[in-house]
Amino acid sequence: MPDILHMVGLKSSSPEDTYQALTTAEGLAAWWTNETHVDGGDGGDVIRFRFGGDNGFDMKVLALDPARRVLWQVIGGPEEWVGTRIDWQLSQDGDDTIVRFKHEGWREPVDFMYHCSTKWAMFLMSLKSLIETGRGAPWPNDIKIHDAH
Amino acid sequence: MPDILHMVGLKSSSPEDTYQALTTAEGLAAWWTNETHVDGGDGGDVIRFRFGGDNGFDMKVLALDPARRVLWQVIGGPEEWVGTRIDWQLSQDGDDTIVRFKHEGWREPVDFMYHCSTKWAMFLMSLKSLIETGRGAPWPNDIKIHDAH
Repeated sequence: MPDILHMVGLKSSSPEDTYQALTTAEGLAAWWTNETHVDGGDGGDVIRFRFGGDNGFDMKVLALDPARRVLWQVIGGPEEWVGTRIDWQLSQDGDDTIVRFKHEGWREPVDFMYHCSTKWAMFLMSLKSLIETGRGAPWPNDIKIHDAH
Repeated sequence: MPDILHMVGLKSSSPEDTYQALTTAEGLAAWWTNETHVDGGDGGDVIRFRFGGDNGFDMKVLALDPARRVLWQVIGGPEEWVGTRIDWQLSQDGDDTIVRFKHEGWREPVDFMYHCSTKWAMFLMSLKSLIETGRGAPWPNDIKIHDAH
């Protein structure tokens, strides 16, 4: 099954800031979508991401390893996404936090997968900007790769 | 074998401009790297892309279908790249040229593949900018995703 892979290096003295940006409503809303809802306790059980109206994704938090790893499973959203997993691996290399990103379990390399691969890169750059400058580019102010998307 | 997939939509009345940007030294140098050398006749037989010194990629042009498709095979460069293929498919959807990009044939999902996936997205946005505004962000003025890379 094809996967979407990405990697970025973030100027940061510790992976803790990036971990916070992946596990708190405030952090997630600052780089992915302003409409982020974290349900449950510390780190969340289910996170609901919306992009206007009902459009979006529900993620079950499968694993949390502080400052190292976050693993989500998609439990609601477009059918191509449901059942896929989004795996964030963090490590530190000198002055850089390295983020290895994998969106795995796509059943087919459909057009939507092509689109999401490019779009994930934009959101990773938004995360990078958030960590480095304090300001990300979350939806609805995200970088568009095709018309309004 | 894992592939890198991307898709962007470019505001353009015809895919011809994008095709030119993928098949001429002037076009390629305006979005990928300033150090682009096209050897051979119309559209090129081999294209050499450099990123300072000897660093870079040599591509054999395997297929050219005007305004529709460009296919390269990597014949020189980092060992992870040699033998892989880069497939550009163009189509028109109203006012948008749709670019489907596939870098296929990676033997293993190594870190360098993660890096290149994100980096390709940056260069596709550079191509988009070139077509839409007349100005891309080719190396050495490319968007950096990790320190100077």
